[in-house]
Formats: sequence, structure tokens, C-alpha cells
Amino acid sequence: MVTQPTQVQGLRTRNRRAILAAIRNLGQTARVDIARDTGISAATVTSITADLVEEGLVEETMDPAAARGGGRGRPRVLLRIRPDAFLIGGAKISTDHITIMLTDYAGAEVLHHVCPLPIGPGLTAEKVAGHLETATASALERLGRKPEELASIGVGLPGFVDASTGIVHWSACFPDRGINFHKLLARGFGCPVYLDNDANVVALAEKWFGFGRGVDDFLVVTIEHGVGLGVVIGGQIFRGARGIGTEFGHTKVEFDGALCRCGQRGCLEAYVADYALAREAAFALDRDLALPVTPQEELDALFAAAKAGDEVADSIFRRAGRIFAMGLANLANIFDPGLIIFSGEQMRFDYLYSPEVLDQMRRLSVASGRTPPKMRVHKWGDRIWARGAAALAMEGLNEQAHDGGPAVAAGAAGPERAAVEDQASL
Amino acid sequence: MVTQPTQVQGLRTRNRRAILAAIRNLGQTARVDIARDTGISAATVTSITADLVEEGLVEETMDPAAARGGGRGRPRVLLRIRPDAFLIGGAKISTDHITIMLTDYAGAEVLHHVCPLPIGPGLTAEKVAGHLETATASALERLGRKPEELASIGVGLPGFVDASTGIVHWSACFPDRGINFHKLLARGFGCPVYLDNDANVVALAEKWFGFGRGVDDFLVVTIEHGVGLGVVIGGQIFRGARGIGTEFGHTKVEFDGALCRCGQRGCLEAYVADYALAREAAFALDRDLALPVTPQEELDALFAAAKAGDEVADSIFRRAGRIFAMGLANLANIFDPGLIIFSGEQMRFDYLYSPEVLDQMRRLSVASGRTPPKMRVHKWGDRIWARGAAALAMEGLNEQAHDGGPAVAAGAAGPERAAVEDQASL
Repeated sequence: MVTQPTQVQGLRTRNRRAILAAIRNLGQTARVDIARDTGISAATVTSITADLVEEGLVEETMDPAAARGGGRGRPRVLLRIRPDAFLIGGAKISTDHITIMLTDYAGAEVLHHVCPLPIGPGLTAEKVAGHLETATASALERLGRKPEELASIGVGLPGFVDASTGIVHWSACFPDRGINFHKLLARGFGCPVYLDNDANVVALAEKWFGFGRGVDDFLVVTIEHGVGLGVVIGGQIFRGARGIGTEFGHTKVEFDGALCRCGQRGCLEAYVADYALAREAAFALDRDLALPVTPQEELDALFAAAKAGDEVADSIFRRAGRIFAMGLANLANIFDPGLIIFSGEQMRFDYLYSPEVLDQMRRLSVASGRTPPKMRVHKWGDRIWARGAAALAMEGLNEQAHDGGPAVAAGAAGPERAAVEDQASL
Repeated sequence: MVTQPTQVQGLRTRNRRAILAAIRNLGQTARVDIARDTGISAATVTSITADLVEEGLVEETMDPAAARGGGRGRPRVLLRIRPDAFLIGGAKISTDHITIMLTDYAGAEVLHHVCPLPIGPGLTAEKVAGHLETATASALERLGRKPEELASIGVGLPGFVDASTGIVHWSACFPDRGINFHKLLARGFGCPVYLDNDANVVALAEKWFGFGRGVDDFLVVTIEHGVGLGVVIGGQIFRGARGIGTEFGHTKVEFDGALCRCGQRGCLEAYVADYALAREAAFALDRDLALPVTPQEELDALFAAAKAGDEVADSIFRRAGRIFAMGLANLANIFDPGLIIFSGEQMRFDYLYSPEVLDQMRRLSVASGRTPPKMRVHKWGDRIWARGAAALAMEGLNEQAHDGGPAVAAGAAGPERAAVEDQASL
């Protein structure tokens, strides 16, 4: 084979990634549709998909329509991601538990596993990394698989996470600051580890499996213990110029306003996150302050009271909605999105995206006279965060191994192969 | 010549643009440095620059260092943009005047021309377009050049401008809404016209000629009659998902706050723009309200009073600075920039970027523990807006004509040639 100049090799790598992404995105698809979708020539699609099939990443299947209907000409051959090619892990670290999802290479859930994370003054980043390692081993054991069968794992963590360096500048999950958490994680795994901010992995999940499928530009807003933002621009997660951008929960909505758990004042989160609502709930519910309750119990009681017509409880949610509308309008002004997806468990509190809130948001956005952005709500629980983390691991695997180099060759044998590399070069 | 597949043709076009941009960016440069800067192979650089020289876009020159020093081996041949290749126009439309700059193809100013824009109830978008046409003709006449010698013109306009469709959803310069202003402009010019939001053209000016030179990601914040934001991501102007994003002046900093000229409440602009300060000035200066003064006179008097120690005048500026710091902190949280450039004439009021304001901004940004973004101030006047508009025209010309297709061939004869096309295909 003639050695190709660097640019052409780069082109083939780009085409390979685009084709793999198209097959993943289109589900089951014919070569001709891949060519149309990617704009890559039919000849190149044929050549690259032949490689992908040979390497075991993609498999051929008969067109089910042709098989059912019969008689309408010869049956078409379709391509799809080969689920058994790799076993992938995704983990979402929360302040009090770890959620793990094992998926096949097509992204389908194989196992869902939740472990409590012991909270206490002695918890460090290193210990959290250890807990994640143990939890992953337990998940694999439940499935009867060995640790070395895991091809890669993605990890979503709340806080200021730099995905490119692996450094966590701050997280609510441990007291360490400016620590290379990726390094701690990589030590314990025999496969590549990919770390990112948890809102980014939810954005990835929406792009791969949710409302963002086939959409090039959209925003994902998550409300949980905090408020998160994932931004997709041109089909890619946008992480800001220096790696920890798109921080939304701590943008200020009031000068010198409500105290936030980050220590600053006036953050959006300090008005709409669960702890912000819970701290006002006691007064609304006229509760005995000596009684111990969890913020979650308090929030549930507050929500029930508001729904039952309690005016003070209702006013707490309405105020949160108004401030949230203001934050959303600012995002709409800055990113001019066509689609905003609300994702996460807290979406069961429908006050945050009530028609009133969405209307307020539109009235606070610049009056361009155009169609306002589409709003969609995903009431997914923790599963989506972990599944997005698995998508991060798959994407990392693609970036790293799909150059037609030796890493892919090693992976060709499927799930029984050795880990692609000892450690990710994040 | 063998017909190349589409992808390889696309690659050559990309390489061509990258090389032209590198020559522009590096000023005077050797082929070997272009190859290093762009990562394009030496052979491709040699081939493409030969085309560029033949087409008259680039010219060869001797290394001045070698010419001066002498005797250190044979003199190197350098490449630079050929200034005479095209005559370019840039225009900035303000609410009461139009600024035009004519530049050569290297971006150097050839003529600076200012015309008043008659304000009145009868002013329409169509009339503004007519005034721009007349003003441009006058500018060319002053230079002794014919209208058909203009290769392209860029236009910066304040407001909600969609650069991709040419539609202006709203502008303070005329009452029309949702109008295709580009179409109105294109009718009057015999050359391609490029229209964009005025903050975007300032960002382009900073990228080509200012502090953004050689920087891939940065923000430009402009303060004038309004507050503007230009965002550069990966060397490109980011215009939001649907074309009129990065709207900063009308993001809300206070729920139900001060009235903005856009009709909404609590916009950043309503606290820091000139009209916002001017409307508080009368009270601070204890001025006879029956006296007619312009907002600019009022602002100058207020600034002088604050500098002279007047506490109320000082408090007006300090409040504007505090709110501005909050807006900047929100931008820093969202874009995580390494560099923020303050640009525009209003920068003569140094209270908006006083050490106190920058310190407040840092304290309102997420505490990541990293180096805060670099801040630079450009006290450029109207010239920079018009020069940025000329850069927009040059960039448009590159995008459109530099495919090695017939458009470039027509342009090869230099400034005496016919206009590249009747109308831009915006």
C-alpha cells in the first residue's frame, strides 16, 4: 500500500468517524443512505464500511422490510453497529451515591447498578475514585464478566471539571480542589477512562439517544441538586475556550442576592435548585423546625402543598419559575438555540417549565419576531446520566482507536479482547 | 489534469483559505513558516502559493532582515498579501451617522469618510441603504476611484442581524422589522455586500488587526450607545445556532429592573449604556431640566463631576461598574475565555474597567482557582468598526472566490477588473 500524505490520512480518519457516527445515528442503514447522510462518496463509504465490518465494529443485516414484504426485488443489505463489539461502562457520581450502567457497543443497557457513597468528613477524591472502582467491579460481577472485559468507562461528575486535562477544580462530591481526578480514576481501571462534567454527559445522552438525535445545535438544561447546562454546537459538546465553560447554575441573576452553596450570592442555583426551595419550605409548611427531615422529603411536602392550593408554597415555586425564566432567556439571547431540552429527575416538579414560565422566558428574550426555541422535557432519572457517561466512553473509544491503527486491530476480536490501552491519554 | 473527487477538491479549498489566512496573519512570511503554522505539507504550500502569486492575490518580497544584514547565506523570499489586489469597503451604520473606510487588500486604511445620517420619523431601512450607497460613492470619488472598482463591501449594523440571511429583525437605526436589509443594500452596489451585527465586525477587526491576532478563542465586549458582544470560537465568529445569538446587552441582570430602550426591563444595557447613565445625570448634576443638552454632553459633564469628586456622580458610575462586572462574570462562566477585549469609543470612561470592577468580576465568577481571563482595553473610535466591516468584506471575498474557480480568475487582473459578482449569495 502506498503511504498516504498526512492530510489524506486525516481525511480518511474523519470520514471513518463520520460514517461510524452515521451508522450509530441512523440505526440500521444502507450504504447509499450513509453516503447521502455524510456527503461522502459511495466508493469511500464502501471501502471504509468494509474495514469496519472486518474489524467487528459493524455488522451486516437484511432489510427487515424486504424480508417481511418479500418479492419487491432483491433484499437490501443494511449495516448496524455490532452490539457485542465492546462492553462499555458509564458512571454518574452524585453527592451520596454512584450510578453505573453497563451498555453494549450499540449503547443498549446491559446492567444498571446503584451504590451508596458514604458521606462524611473523611471523604476524599481518592476515596471516591476507590468507591467507583469497587462499584464497577460489583456491576461486572453481577453480569458474570471480568474487569478486563470492560473496553472503556465514562464518568460524569458535577462541578468544575476540565475534560481535556482531567482536573477537577471544584466538585460538591469531595473537598479536594484542583485535583487530577482522572489520574486517580485511571490508576484503578485497566481500560481508558473518560471524565466530564455531568451536564455534558447528559447532553451527550440526548444527542445519542434522546431529543438531540440528528440535531446539530441544542442546549440541555438539567435541574437536580444543582443547575447544569450542556451546549452542543455543530454536533459537538462545547466546553468553553479553556475547558470548564457553559457554567449556568452559578451565573448571577441578582446582585448580592440569595446565598448559594458555592459561597457566592445571587447564583441562579440559589433560587431554583432543590436546596434553595427546601430552605424556604419549613416556613411555608409551618413545620416544627426541631424535626429532622431530608431536603427531598421537605421538597415533596412543599410540592404537595402547592398542588393542594397552599398559597405560600405555590409562591415559592412561582418565584423559582420566574427566576428560571430569566436565566433561560439569557441563554436564549446568547446561544439563539432552536431547541432547549430540560432533562433530569427534578423535572417531575412541573412548575419549572409551566406554560407561565415558558411564556415569561419568551417575553424576557430579545423580540426578534421569529419562532421561539422549541422546548422539550425529558423526565429521565439517574439512568440517563450514566448512559450519557457510557456514550462519552464510546465517543472516546472512537476518537482514540478508529484511525485504522493498531488499537482498532487489537479490538477486532470483540469483547474478549484485552483492554485497548492501559490508560487514556486525556 | 485528472478530475479530483469532491472531498479532495474541498480539502484544497480549505488549504487555500488556511494558507491565505496564515499569510495575512503572519504579515510577511516564508513558505516554510506557512507550512509550520498551518500544518499543511511543504509541497502543497508551494503549489497553492504559486497559484496565489499568479492570480495576483499574494506577492513575493525579499527578507528585509537578510537585505539589511547581508552575507548570512542567500536572501530568503517572503510572501505577503498584495495590497493592490482589491479595493475593499467597510461601513458602520450608527443611529446618526455612517462611517466608511476604504482599505487595500492587506487591510490598510486608504480613506476614512464620515457622513451624517438624517434622523427623522420618515427614515426607513430603504432610505438608510440609499444613504450608504451615496456615502460610499462620495468616498470613492474623494479617492478618484470609480464605483465599479470596489471589490466588495462589509456593513456593520447594531441590532438583531442575521448574517446568513441578511434579515434585520430589529435595529435602532430604522423602524422596519424583519426586513431583508442585505437585499436592499445589494441592489445599490455592483459588488458583493456582506452584512453583520456591528459587534461581530469589531470582533473581526480585533482578530485581524487587534489583540485577537493569533488568538483562537476570545470575547470582545463593546460599549457604545448599546452593549455588544462578539464571540470568537476556534478562530471563527460564533453567531449562535440560529444566526442572531451572542446578544449580551439585553441579557437580564435584574428581574423587573430598569427600563431599557428595547422596551423590556432589567437589561444590562439599561444600567451601563450611555443613555442609561445620561438619564440619571440630570439629578446628580442638579441641572436645570428645561435646558436642552445632548446625552453626550450630559455624560461628559457627569464624568467630569465624578472625576472632580462629586459623590452622586461617582455613585452612578460605580453602580454601572458593579452591574457590568456581574454581566462580565456571567460571560466568563459561560464561555470560560482566556481573553476578553473591551473595544469601542466609550472605553474613555475608565470606570467600566477599573481595577475595582475587574476585581468584582473575578469574585462573581466561579472560583476555579485558575488564572482569571486576561483583560485588554482598546480605546478605538468608529474607525475600528468600519475597518472590521472591511475585514468582513475581505473574508467574504475569500470564502466566495478562493476556490480556484472562475470568480478568482476574473479577479486576477487586480483593482481594475470588473466586480467579482453582481450580488453576494448571502
